Amino acid sequence: MEELVGLREGSSGSPVSLRELWGPYPRVRRGVRGGLEWLKQKLFCVGEDWYFLMTLGVLMALISYTMNFTIGRVVRAHKWLYREIGDSHLLRYLSWTVYPVALVSFSSGFSQSITPFSGGSGIPELKTILSGVVLEDYLDIKNFGAKVAGLTCTLATGSTIFLGKVGPFVHLSVMIAAYLGRVHTKATGESENKSKQNEMLVAAAAVGVATVFAAPFSGVLFSIEVMSSHFSVWDYWRGFFAATCGAFMFRLLAVFNSEQETITSLYKTSFRVDVPFDLPEIFFFVALGAICGILSCAYLFCQRTFLGFVKTNRVISKLLATSKPLYSALAALVLASITYPPGVGRFLASRLSMKEHLDSLFDNHSWALMTRNSSPPWPEELDPQNLWFEWYHPQFTIFGTLAFFLVMKFWMLILATTIPIPAGYFMPIFIFGAAIGRLIGEALALAFPEGIVAGGVTNPIMPGGYALAGAAAFSGAVTHTISTALLAFELTGQIVHALPVLMAVLAANAVAQSCQPSFYDGTIIVKKLPYLPWIRGRKISSQRVIVGHFMNCTITTLAKDTPLEEVARVVTSTDLAKYFLVESTESQILVGTVGRAHLVQALQAEPPSWAPGHRRLRDLLAGGCPTEPVTLQLSPETSLHQAHNLFELLKLQSLPVTSLGRAVGSVSWVELKKAISNLTNPPAPK
Amino acid sequence: MEELVGLREGSSGSPVSLRELWGPYPRVRRGVRGGLEWLKQKLFCVGEDWYFLMTLGVLMALISYTMNFTIGRVVRAHKWLYREIGDSHLLRYLSWTVYPVALVSFSSGFSQSITPFSGGSGIPELKTILSGVVLEDYLDIKNFGAKVAGLTCTLATGSTIFLGKVGPFVHLSVMIAAYLGRVHTKATGESENKSKQNEMLVAAAAVGVATVFAAPFSGVLFSIEVMSSHFSVWDYWRGFFAATCGAFMFRLLAVFNSEQETITSLYKTSFRVDVPFDLPEIFFFVALGAICGILSCAYLFCQRTFLGFVKTNRVISKLLATSKPLYSALAALVLASITYPPGVGRFLASRLSMKEHLDSLFDNHSWALMTRNSSPPWPEELDPQNLWFEWYHPQFTIFGTLAFFLVMKFWMLILATTIPIPAGYFMPIFIFGAAIGRLIGEALALAFPEGIVAGGVTNPIMPGGYALAGAAAFSGAVTHTISTALLAFELTGQIVHALPVLMAVLAANAVAQSCQPSFYDGTIIVKKLPYLPWIRGRKISSQRVIVGHFMNCTITTLAKDTPLEEVARVVTSTDLAKYFLVESTESQILVGTVGRAHLVQALQAEPPSWAPGHRRLRDLLAGGCPTEPVTLQLSPETSLHQAHNLFELLKLQSLPVTSLGRAVGSVSWVELKKAISNLTNPPAPK
Repeated sequence: MEELVGLREGSSGSPVSLRELWGPYPRVRRGVRGGLEWLKQKLFCVGEDWYFLMTLGVLMALISYTMNFTIGRVVRAHKWLYREIGDSHLLRYLSWTVYPVALVSFSSGFSQSITPFSGGSGIPELKTILSGVVLEDYLDIKNFGAKVAGLTCTLATGSTIFLGKVGPFVHLSVMIAAYLGRVHTKATGESENKSKQNEMLVAAAAVGVATVFAAPFSGVLFSIEVMSSHFSVWDYWRGFFAATCGAFMFRLLAVFNSEQETITSLYKTSFRVDVPFDLPEIFFFVALGAICGILSCAYLFCQRTFLGFVKTNRVISKLLATSKPLYSALAALVLASITYPPGVGRFLASRLSMKEHLDSLFDNHSWALMTRNSSPPWPEELDPQNLWFEWYHPQFTIFGTLAFFLVMKFWMLILATTIPIPAGYFMPIFIFGAAIGRLIGEALALAFPEGIVAGGVTNPIMPGGYALAGAAAFSGAVTHTISTALLAFELTGQIVHALPVLMAVLAANAVAQSCQPSFYDGTIIVKKLPYLPWIRGRKISSQRVIVGHFMNCTITTLAKDTPLEEVARVVTSTDLAKYFLVESTESQILVGTVGRAHLVQALQAEPPSWAPGHRRLRDLLAGGCPTEPVTLQLSPETSLHQAHNLFELLKLQSLPVTSLGRAVGSVSWVELKKAISNLTNPPAPK
Repeated sequence: MEELVGLREGSSGSPVSLRELWGPYPRVRRGVRGGLEWLKQKLFCVGEDWYFLMTLGVLMALISYTMNFTIGRVVRAHKWLYREIGDSHLLRYLSWTVYPVALVSFSSGFSQSITPFSGGSGIPELKTILSGVVLEDYLDIKNFGAKVAGLTCTLATGSTIFLGKVGPFVHLSVMIAAYLGRVHTKATGESENKSKQNEMLVAAAAVGVATVFAAPFSGVLFSIEVMSSHFSVWDYWRGFFAATCGAFMFRLLAVFNSEQETITSLYKTSFRVDVPFDLPEIFFFVALGAICGILSCAYLFCQRTFLGFVKTNRVISKLLATSKPLYSALAALVLASITYPPGVGRFLASRLSMKEHLDSLFDNHSWALMTRNSSPPWPEELDPQNLWFEWYHPQFTIFGTLAFFLVMKFWMLILATTIPIPAGYFMPIFIFGAAIGRLIGEALALAFPEGIVAGGVTNPIMPGGYALAGAAAFSGAVTHTISTALLAFELTGQIVHALPVLMAVLAANAVAQSCQPSFYDGTIIVKKLPYLPWIRGRKISSQRVIVGHFMNCTITTLAKDTPLEEVARVVTSTDLAKYFLVESTESQILVGTVGRAHLVQALQAEPPSWAPGHRRLRDLLAGGCPTEPVTLQLSPETSLHQAHNLFELLKLQSLPVTSLGRAVGSVSWVELKKAISNLTNPPAPK
């Protein structure tokens, strides 16, 4: 009986079932159950949402792997067709070009018919969303199928169209996260939490990058650098956890499918470890970075100009508006014709897939030194052991083909970015940068054939290291990020070039950031998406400009004693979403805000027979029309700098300005943007 | 003559000197000059302060290298003394112990006599400073000499006292940055810019880590994770640039001093690259991470408890208050006696320096497999080729020594952290973690001697990989950071274990963060420094608690119509730094703030013969007493969550609360802290 009392007491009020009581070892079982409860509590204490993040990572890894698998099959079929179709040039040309043309036009037609949001990379739009703007439907799950199918077709064209995977994957991942979040909210009945949602979206972006490159570190950093202007260290672990789950699952699937022995990096290199580079080479690495920076400026400028031209040119814009697949097919035909291997494609190494491009460019031997005395023949078939043969031509040598590759791909890439299909633009830029680096590295290897003398052993210069630095520097300059350096290490599984690559990336960024907006910012500008510019170079003058100078003074306030006729007039004559509610017309003391929709509803519910001037807004509010309190307000003395910081940090859209409690104006992105642009280009004095 | 006019016009109004006019090729020279001007403008446009950052990096690298060089000499002298002193045990014991005891007591006495701020790592204090609190004199340059001299002595004791370098270096670097900033401000005459200063301090912290480990990436990330709760991506490049300069210079000096052939990483490893680990090993890596997490909780708990004990115990606290060098000498004597190599030190591998500890623990061979059949003798002298012999004992085997090392170092480390000398606590923790990993790795290598079969070749399990993961996981768990994984790769120059190490670190962090505050937060709590707790697990309830519930309602306001006698009474009876200024006693509309010092000054300047009740505060203000406008104000409806975010993001100390323009209260860290603690422990209902 004592045992029973003890049990009742121990279970702290919860009823004890008979089964529990009669089973063997009640104490032990209770202990175990208590321990499990404790563990469960602990597990769900740090990361209430770790299971959510894991699901996201695993799901994206599955999608990424399945997509790669499918694409591999399609590409293999294309290769087989091209090989088996016979020696007729016409047939071979047709088999080479029809495939990508059909895929691209299908991708364009299919995805655009479902949703207009599926084109492009999606990162610029996500950047806008994460800065607080609501883009309706952009994260709707119904875009998912269109984007996946379209992207698969795009990627299946391989190196012909030369487009990547990262951007759309980030978009896909964020879409799934938003969807899972909505499901979770519905299931638990919790109210939506804006800041938490945002954190999840940033983590999802990291997953997107990590499941493409199997690189959790650079996935997190790259997505932070590209997406947000500020981030909270407390939420850092979310990104890492989700990205690690994704990257692990992605590589695990490759192991299960017997593609590799164990979990390794994607583009494994075998650079020399003991003396990877000599000290004076650091100078060339930095110079390479600066060259990449200058080229990236040229690329960004041309890309933005051409994108603008496509939008404004009457013929092309009409074609794009009426028949997107036709434009896509035409562009794809041009690109495919140029890459036809027996033709110009011979000098573009166009038989290599994009993965093989990178593998060959990161090769640790020097092609220039190897072909100095002997010239390998151009193989009829691709030689998987010696991919670099594709880059060699007896007359032009490798320098000719690499330079030709750079010149041609420069405009081909710009053309490809205008095709309205779901596609990423990071990978082609990464490969382009690798080719720049390789060209300079080979030139150096030829210029200093004696190489590095260290410890009595002579080691030739490794152009592969320069290719790595070039890839990181060029892609870093185009996207204005530094974490591409880390990406280069995670992709290759070697970190021996840590300092030179980082220095090249910094040099490239210094040049690019001072001359051009980043690829994503440029797209935001061309697409006219809303954005908040940042205050360049922390101009001291931004501390002196105060809100009073630039706020919007013509605000519409509704006083509690406003007659209802007046309220009705205001509601019908303006289309603001919210009105400032003030205490009285005379005092103008700010009380809160009232939504237009609520006002309209309340006005409609009023009996139609009110005597004019009789009822006031106060009665409407007393009748249940909801108002919102003002939780944060600026004053006219707040500096532009402080206001900008507030908007950036708290992801605000607009704020009221009060002086001595009176509503005197409001500040939104529009005013801030104007004030910031006046900082750099002061308005002409009146 | 036309040429002359053209010149005058071309030079756009600036006077043309005769020399310029008569020199050859004026056009070309003008063009070149214009180009240089343009380049100069461009260079100083992105990073107005890049030269500042470079100076900081180079300076810190020079200090770090010089310190290492000096320490190396002192340690060599100690080794020589110990070797040459003869075979008498007493003499050898004395030579082993007197050296560190003398160094530590000198370090303690010297640094504490100059400034009380020089003890410990300094990171907790910096964290407080970066969150907006002003700690007077903590960044004064006069602490510099004390910290450098003290740290050199501490590190010269080597593995006897077993302390590191990172924390004080971060402090030194921030000190120099603050000093350079002040010099810059004085030289240019610009007004001080708080937010810019903060950015510089964060960059300086990155330099501190980077110049110790020659690891720019993890330097930046680690300093961000440890120091700040939020950071701005725009200012990211500052940290990278400064850290890269520092790390490059640091390694460059090593090359110039012929210590190495080229720039490489600090603790180079030679792990197998092709199959570094088998897939099932991932499980053991995660388990290792969890074990490290649990051990780190134990460590953090014991460390904090012991630190509290030292502070409260009457005898010890009296000793510490009156004679710090004596306490230091006693603690050093205990530690040195235990590590005496012919004694207990035999089982602690105490003849190894801290660098050699890491080098040996990261060894890619399995000691357990190598000593299974043969047992190497304990060498009389240290064998630089086979450092791991130090870890072997014929009776105890390596498992015995590793376990003994862990048990002993656990409490020895805690004892060492209480010694009041400038010292870092990261490195010992990193080595401790490596030993945990090595122990588990060796056990696995012995348990699965057949190893990994891949491609027909059998590869044994590499315990070095586990040591790497253990080091990253344990140090990550103790400091609550994830970037220690990256640090492990940058330190060893190999990234083949990317995923397993990251997973171990995440597992360790999950355990540690849910159970214990981090090492630095723990120190902040014990030292009673001001700090703002974070809202755990994003409690939804923090959205429901509003400022009105927890604000400080008893505020002192001064109305413009307050008589001066009343003002004088308020100023003398309270000691607030600022008073809220309201429009009138009746309306209580908030106008701004007025500083106490200014008020006192203005009151003292008043003629002593004013008739009571005649003059009011208004007259004082009109007479020139300066007021400050309120730029940001909360309302009682603002949620705790939002207020907390504001304080964190904008690094605020306190904010006024207004309702309908009337000052109704104020919120500061004190109120926020109380409200947050009430969230987790709801107050008993009254």
